[in-house]
Amino acid sequence: MGTEWTDNRKNLMFFSGRAHPELAEQVAKELDVPVTAQTARDFANGEIFVRFEESVRGCDAFVLQSHPAPLNKWLMEQLIMLDALKRGSAKRITAILPFYPYARQDKKHRGREPISARLVADLLHTAGADRIITVDLHTDQIQGFFDGPVDHMRAQNLLTGYIRDNYPCENIVVVSPDSGRVRVAEKWADSLGGTPLAFIHKTRDPMVPNQVVSNRVVGEVAGRTCVLTDDMIDTGGTIAGAVKLLLEEGARDVIVAATHGVLSPPAKERLSTCGAREVIVTNTLPIEEEKRFPQLTVLSIAPLLASTIRAVFENGSVTGLFNGSA
Amino acid sequence: MGTEWTDNRKNLMFFSGRAHPELAEQVAKELDVPVTAQTARDFANGEIFVRFEESVRGCDAFVLQSHPAPLNKWLMEQLIMLDALKRGSAKRITAILPFYPYARQDKKHRGREPISARLVADLLHTAGADRIITVDLHTDQIQGFFDGPVDHMRAQNLLTGYIRDNYPCENIVVVSPDSGRVRVAEKWADSLGGTPLAFIHKTRDPMVPNQVVSNRVVGEVAGRTCVLTDDMIDTGGTIAGAVKLLLEEGARDVIVAATHGVLSPPAKERLSTCGAREVIVTNTLPIEEEKRFPQLTVLSIAPLLASTIRAVFENGSVTGLFNGSA
Amino acid sequence: MGTEWTDNRKNLMFFSGRAHPELAEQVAKELDVPVTAQTARDFANGEIFVRFEESVRGCDAFVLQSHPAPLNKWLMEQLIMLDALKRGSAKRITAILPFYPYARQDKKHRGREPISARLVADLLHTAGADRIITVDLHTDQIQGFFDGPVDHMRAQNLLTGYIRDNYPCENIVVVSPDSGRVRVAEKWADSLGGTPLAFIHKTRDPMVPNQVVSNRVVGEVAGRTCVLTDDMIDTGGTIAGAVKLLLEEGARDVIVAATHGVLSPPAKERLSTCGAREVIVTNTLPIEEEKRFPQLTVLSIAPLLASTIRAVFENGSVTGLFNGSA
Amino acid sequence: MGTEWTDNRKNLMFFSGRAHPELAEQVAKELDVPVTAQTARDFANGEIFVRFEESVRGCDAFVLQSHPAPLNKWLMEQLIMLDALKRGSAKRITAILPFYPYARQDKKHRGREPISARLVADLLHTAGADRIITVDLHTDQIQGFFDGPVDHMRAQNLLTGYIRDNYPCENIVVVSPDSGRVRVAEKWADSLGGTPLAFIHKTRDPMVPNQVVSNRVVGEVAGRTCVLTDDMIDTGGTIAGAVKLLLEEGARDVIVAATHGVLSPPAKERLSTCGAREVIVTNTLPIEEEKRFPQLTVLSIAPLLASTIRAVFENGSVTGLFNGSA
Amino acid sequence: MGTEWTDNRKNLMFFSGRAHPELAEQVAKELDVPVTAQTARDFANGEIFVRFEESVRGCDAFVLQSHPAPLNKWLMEQLIMLDALKRGSAKRITAILPFYPYARQDKKHRGREPISARLVADLLHTAGADRIITVDLHTDQIQGFFDGPVDHMRAQNLLTGYIRDNYPCENIVVVSPDSGRVRVAEKWADSLGGTPLAFIHKTRDPMVPNQVVSNRVVGEVAGRTCVLTDDMIDTGGTIAGAVKLLLEEGARDVIVAATHGVLSPPAKERLSTCGAREVIVTNTLPIEEEKRFPQLTVLSIAPLLASTIRAVFENGSVTGLFNGSA
Amino acid sequence: MGTEWTDNRKNLMFFSGRAHPELAEQVAKELDVPVTAQTARDFANGEIFVRFEESVRGCDAFVLQSHPAPLNKWLMEQLIMLDALKRGSAKRITAILPFYPYARQDKKHRGREPISARLVADLLHTAGADRIITVDLHTDQIQGFFDGPVDHMRAQNLLTGYIRDNYPCENIVVVSPDSGRVRVAEKWADSLGGTPLAFIHKTRDPMVPNQVVSNRVVGEVAGRTCVLTDDMIDTGGTIAGAVKLLLEEGARDVIVAATHGVLSPPAKERLSTCGAREVIVTNTLPIEEEKRFPQLTVLSIAPLLASTIRAVFENGSVTGLFNGSA
Repeated sequence: MGTEWTDNRKNLMFFSGRAHPELAEQVAKELDVPVTAQTARDFANGEIFVRFEESVRGCDAFVLQSHPAPLNKWLMEQLIMLDALKRGSAKRITAILPFYPYARQDKKHRGREPISARLVADLLHTAGADRIITVDLHTDQIQGFFDGPVDHMRAQNLLTGYIRDNYPCENIVVVSPDSGRVRVAEKWADSLGGTPLAFIHKTRDPMVPNQVVSNRVVGEVAGRTCVLTDDMIDTGGTIAGAVKLLLEEGARDVIVAATHGVLSPPAKERLSTCGAREVIVTNTLPIEEEKRFPQLTVLSIAPLLASTIRAVFENGSVTGLFNGSA
Repeated sequence: MGTEWTDNRKNLMFFSGRAHPELAEQVAKELDVPVTAQTARDFANGEIFVRFEESVRGCDAFVLQSHPAPLNKWLMEQLIMLDALKRGSAKRITAILPFYPYARQDKKHRGREPISARLVADLLHTAGADRIITVDLHTDQIQGFFDGPVDHMRAQNLLTGYIRDNYPCENIVVVSPDSGRVRVAEKWADSLGGTPLAFIHKTRDPMVPNQVVSNRVVGEVAGRTCVLTDDMIDTGGTIAGAVKLLLEEGARDVIVAATHGVLSPPAKERLSTCGAREVIVTNTLPIEEEKRFPQLTVLSIAPLLASTIRAVFENGSVTGLFNGSA
Repeated sequence: MGTEWTDNRKNLMFFSGRAHPELAEQVAKELDVPVTAQTARDFANGEIFVRFEESVRGCDAFVLQSHPAPLNKWLMEQLIMLDALKRGSAKRITAILPFYPYARQDKKHRGREPISARLVADLLHTAGADRIITVDLHTDQIQGFFDGPVDHMRAQNLLTGYIRDNYPCENIVVVSPDSGRVRVAEKWADSLGGTPLAFIHKTRDPMVPNQVVSNRVVGEVAGRTCVLTDDMIDTGGTIAGAVKLLLEEGARDVIVAATHGVLSPPAKERLSTCGAREVIVTNTLPIEEEKRFPQLTVLSIAPLLASTIRAVFENGSVTGLFNGSA
Repeated sequence: MGTEWTDNRKNLMFFSGRAHPELAEQVAKELDVPVTAQTARDFANGEIFVRFEESVRGCDAFVLQSHPAPLNKWLMEQLIMLDALKRGSAKRITAILPFYPYARQDKKHRGREPISARLVADLLHTAGADRIITVDLHTDQIQGFFDGPVDHMRAQNLLTGYIRDNYPCENIVVVSPDSGRVRVAEKWADSLGGTPLAFIHKTRDPMVPNQVVSNRVVGEVAGRTCVLTDDMIDTGGTIAGAVKLLLEEGARDVIVAATHGVLSPPAKERLSTCGAREVIVTNTLPIEEEKRFPQLTVLSIAPLLASTIRAVFENGSVTGLFNGSA
Repeated sequence: MGTEWTDNRKNLMFFSGRAHPELAEQVAKELDVPVTAQTARDFANGEIFVRFEESVRGCDAFVLQSHPAPLNKWLMEQLIMLDALKRGSAKRITAILPFYPYARQDKKHRGREPISARLVADLLHTAGADRIITVDLHTDQIQGFFDGPVDHMRAQNLLTGYIRDNYPCENIVVVSPDSGRVRVAEKWADSLGGTPLAFIHKTRDPMVPNQVVSNRVVGEVAGRTCVLTDDMIDTGGTIAGAVKLLLEEGARDVIVAATHGVLSPPAKERLSTCGAREVIVTNTLPIEEEKRFPQLTVLSIAPLLASTIRAVFENGSVTGLFNGSA
Repeated sequence: MGTEWTDNRKNLMFFSGRAHPELAEQVAKELDVPVTAQTARDFANGEIFVRFEESVRGCDAFVLQSHPAPLNKWLMEQLIMLDALKRGSAKRITAILPFYPYARQDKKHRGREPISARLVADLLHTAGADRIITVDLHTDQIQGFFDGPVDHMRAQNLLTGYIRDNYPCENIVVVSPDSGRVRVAEKWADSLGGTPLAFIHKTRDPMVPNQVVSNRVVGEVAGRTCVLTDDMIDTGGTIAGAVKLLLEEGARDVIVAATHGVLSPPAKERLSTCGAREVIVTNTLPIEEEKRFPQLTVLSIAPLLASTIRAVFENGSVTGLFNGSA
């Protein structure tokens, strides 16, 4: 009878919720690791049941879930998967949220509001997540909402690379659709070679709270190709309005680029008719056929997610790829 | 300049999610305290926004939410409300869940499963709940999933009182629809004056996992009025099958009584045609017109909830009303 | 000067409290890993001191303790051992409780009671346990009381295997001693080939709380071999009464089978004289000579514990052996 | 012998660290509650000792500390005061940080960085703070770093009120000193009656990381009175550069307004010689004589803090005063 | 329908474990508050069951337990009572441990040991204690093991008061029985009017670990009345040896004084025959008839505990009585 | 596509704050592992910024910081480094504090004080430390303030070894400078071969709190070489006074030995002129040229720290070296 020793090897297991199976398959292929088989089903009243078909003991688990509508369902499914992994003795659990839910509620805009983005971080932690991987948070500070490592990836290179490959850069101006994202637009301007910058200024009526009186463009856009950039496009109202305003101000062309294509109705109608030459998003969210329109281009985020997963699993030997703040 | 003292009075504030406004109104009326005004709306992608219209500083907050389908949405709404109360400086926060979600997933039936009922308790705690009020948990042990006070109310008196008022008790036999709830049926039998007991025994094929071969009744039912009791009726399959079996075995009449009327389709069809004389539930969940059928009786849980809230607020001066394990 | 790398090997260390050294030795032999040497002694006032004789840095620690009377002492000893392991830098700590203490207090039966089974889970967690291994919990929901992995093993196969090997199965009826364990009896009935089922129904006097008026058997037992099954036998009152009732009702033979042989006095007298043909338990608790009687058979739980430990240590390569919900 | 009841009155106690006694006195006077007497001294090696001279049992404690240099010392003093209050049985503890330390490190700008603003929130919580009161956080999201109520007050009304009282508003343009604070400038523009907006765009050399090539003004400033607004002025380099650039671009006048006057050297030299007509700050930080210069105006934040404290103590009867997101 | 307000009165409830009912009765009488009625019983295997007979909602609960042998039982009983109070909605819970269990294991004397005194603090916290009241900890640092208020009372005044009342002080020397408690003896010397000091020095054999070779007295004792003081007397070996050594060195008289009379056998024999003139202890632990001997004097700690409870309940209006570090 | 496995190797990374780079270099050299490159700088207002130059993913991190004045700055720097490691995905984080800050505030000396040594333990834990390595804590109980492994190293062998090498032992008496450290002096006496023991007794005026009336030596010192030992020397007042008193009492020689040379002014003046033959300390704190004086000898603690780090990294294969309570 002697001491028992074993090599402490670890294995990568990749899991996916049911919200965006296509993205999971793309990532699995890039990783060359299969999506772990599981049973997942809905009870009649909406309760979700999940069971993994293989042992997860001691694994390094990566749990991808996308968060389109109905977002709360998909979030709850991910929490339940994390709980099952925790109770099933996974060694380390990383939740992957390409689109971080409730990111827009990252502060109390007025009193007696929740900070739902912090709540989501706490729920993930409670359910069992040790770490988070996400892409282009609405604000960078959301990283600090989670009490643990957050690998915050950026789609900026993917998007600006596409623009550089498809458009001449000399005449571009980068435009922020509102005053709150001018700093991001500035980074894009740097990335596109030091282009000029502009933004849309919303004037509010001092007598009527939250009443926007008029929009005006601050900065020079006439005769230029505008790259209008945002983190997400939801119903498309702000973006479509900005495109029209820019064209009215004499812009030659407007290209819209955003990481997250939420594209809730009537985004398709608005964006396809607003005059934009191209609308570029990634597939952090599923974009079904009925959401698509001729000007829409969808780039795959899968290679970035796969290389991040591999870097995390192998402890940093691939940090060259990160131009996020991982 | 002197020391500043103030009487430390406390006020009851009552909040409700949007899942079952009718129940909230009934409770508010019983309590004689209004539902606190709030803004609650859904973003296009399913994100929920909540803001209270009045200050909640220092209040003793009671947050009612019912959990019908889409259950995950209503759970998330309640979590967000709890977060807003915590950040808005409520003094004490009680989450009221008349129907506790995911109660059926209260253990790992096999390996690599979640224990979602524990997860729900942890999520409520993380979001800010100091206490829970609930009714007829699927199993009593779920009380122990929450790290704090749980007032676990019982609808049994409400339901058996109705039966005693409407049916002669001398010939009753209480029947459990399966082997797991015989103990509860025994409590009903005691409450109805010491009636006999029976249950439905499901025989499984030893060669085929989870394959139920046949159901048989254990106990005497012929010529008797069967009171078939369960905690919830979801799609009604088990219950309707039990009713038929009891009638085949010679039962004179079958009355079905359950606390939670989930009544997911095709419950209406099954229950209205299975031969039951009456199906009695409470309104812990909303029962819309399209779920109703002639044999269905819905009793209101509001008086029990209201008197529980008052007892909690006033610290126990009303404990006489509890026949739960509060 | 360069980076320092080392292989991250891990070693299994097996520890035992002083409550049941025989079981520890059996498990150690099955595992082929020695029980780690330690100093453990009682101060005159009952305080316990523990010190390990070898370094525990970085080990994968498994801490077996049985919980017979005086149960609180043995629980406290296990908590102290966990604390010493935590402070001594063990890498992962698994508490093994073959008989989970306070499992019967798994809910508030009435108001103002503790939920001691949850308390025990929290105490283990606070002291340093990352995981729990246990056998046949009083109710399965206790798994959810611990915030981490619980490997819940079942002695059912061990016990029913013994019965199948020693008794003809064709005429068996499985009997639950009360209404609360009919579901477990049903599983045994399936495991023994689909036998019939019965249970003892206690009728209470509606005028006198908790006054049991009479017991009656629900189900057919006349002329049959009854397998009366429970999770534990404490003083044997319920079981001995059930045996007598079954024999009065015409049972041909009664075999009693339970996982946990608490066998507090006067269990020996009651069980040896009640008419049962055989009483089968496992050694999750020590069964000293003075507790034994002719009809008692004790099966060893050590092989099941040893293979569970190995599976946990090696991360799941032996899951085939589990028919628990591990 | 009977039950013992007492009225649960609460008393406000106000405490102050040693960093900014003048502000503490102003707040105490506004509140009409004295600063609680305490012993606070430094050991030779920098360790701080604090002891309160009066009992703090059961009080509603408000602990003001300002955070000028040496900031870590003042933060640690506040943490030690919180610990002493927690151990001394204060009932509720509110930490007041008029200038939130480390607010600029609110995210990982690149990999392997801390998020020190979150760390500060966690340290306050660990030491015993139940709630936080602060003024004009560097970013609003920092509210979400604390797991509890944060009353986030705004000095904007104080500052814009002063400007409205002292300058004609018709010709004003609000200018953000960089792209990241345009949204805040937009709020100021609204508050000053819907003025135009501009910002300073820093162009970076794409070949050299973080190398700013040139600054240009985006928006119209020629002939106008520029209100250059920021949350804090540290060494004054960015602000002084912006003032010069605006004057070069033809601005008639430049007024600088910021909440937090850190004013580390050489701020005095830069700001007094850059051409700004007036530099307006509040006294969230002490501004000693040697930091002052002719163009500097210091407004007192004490009335806002005092009315916030009173509102928190009295549970919200004064919410009208908040135009923050309390 | 309007807002519901109530005065937030609080009531003191006093609870006691079963270890030392006489002390509980004394405290209750001093407080003029009855011991709350409860059911407490032991199951045959040692499990403890507790249920309070009255509602505890919203009360300010004080839970006294003494910790004689079998100490682990009484500790577990107190933890279970705390859990029942937490789950029963007590508002604030104070655990009173007149003799803090496991106080001697307050550090790792060597590697791989527990720090059981910290473990006890954590267990109390986990079970629900918000605060602790205790008397004469083995070392003062144990206060810091609990994450919350600890009212650490001193019996020194009680004991030295008795000595001053019964012995002339002019010729006294205070003696510490070992090198580790000289500081405490020094405090006693101050309290008795600046008496001289001595201690027993144990010389160890450098070749044999922990082998004490000889004891010698450091300081002058010949012709004097020695007051030998310790925090606790367990089996009395050290103390009896010290008494003999002091008498050998010419002491005129030896008086022994200690707070905690553990008095495990053979303390009675040792102390009654060692030559001490009087042995003075308090009743923090029960001292049954069979432990008593002619020279033993037992002083009651009940008045100190009662006035501490009242001071805590009334928030510090009685701090004058504390000469502990409360 | 198959399962992905990797060897789970781990690497040691060594980090150092800026307080004592010389010690860090010595440890690094002993370990043969470089100090990890980092950016660390102070903002003008005292805020500290830290960024590591290499990936820390998955490393076993050891973070050395010394804590001389300004102690709060260096403590905060270490907390920030811990946070950066936690967020950068270090696998395990050990904080090394050769001199534990605030160790003297390890209890409440009177009411309404903090227990700052516990606070420091909690802050380290909150920031991310999994383990602590420290040297000669002011009291051993501080180990119990941290909820995790504490390797508490002893410099006693280093110091007594030096004394044995440089002084004849036959005539030595070990002297404690006050009544609180006699136990430590006793250990030194054992370690130096069973020498006699003495201590300085401070008599206080019973009429004036904390007024020391006179010091007297308890024990024999005349004609002997006194080894006066303490854990730290701060301003040197107590030690210099003790040296003078011992010489007055006829001591032949006085050697002072302490682990931590805080040496705040006027320690240099006091110690160099008090008559001590030699003052021996270690370099747990930096001792700059201006603090040194002819009688001062500084021994390096680096070999002890380096071998501790290696033992922790390699999980205990070097425990022989510990004569601490690791």
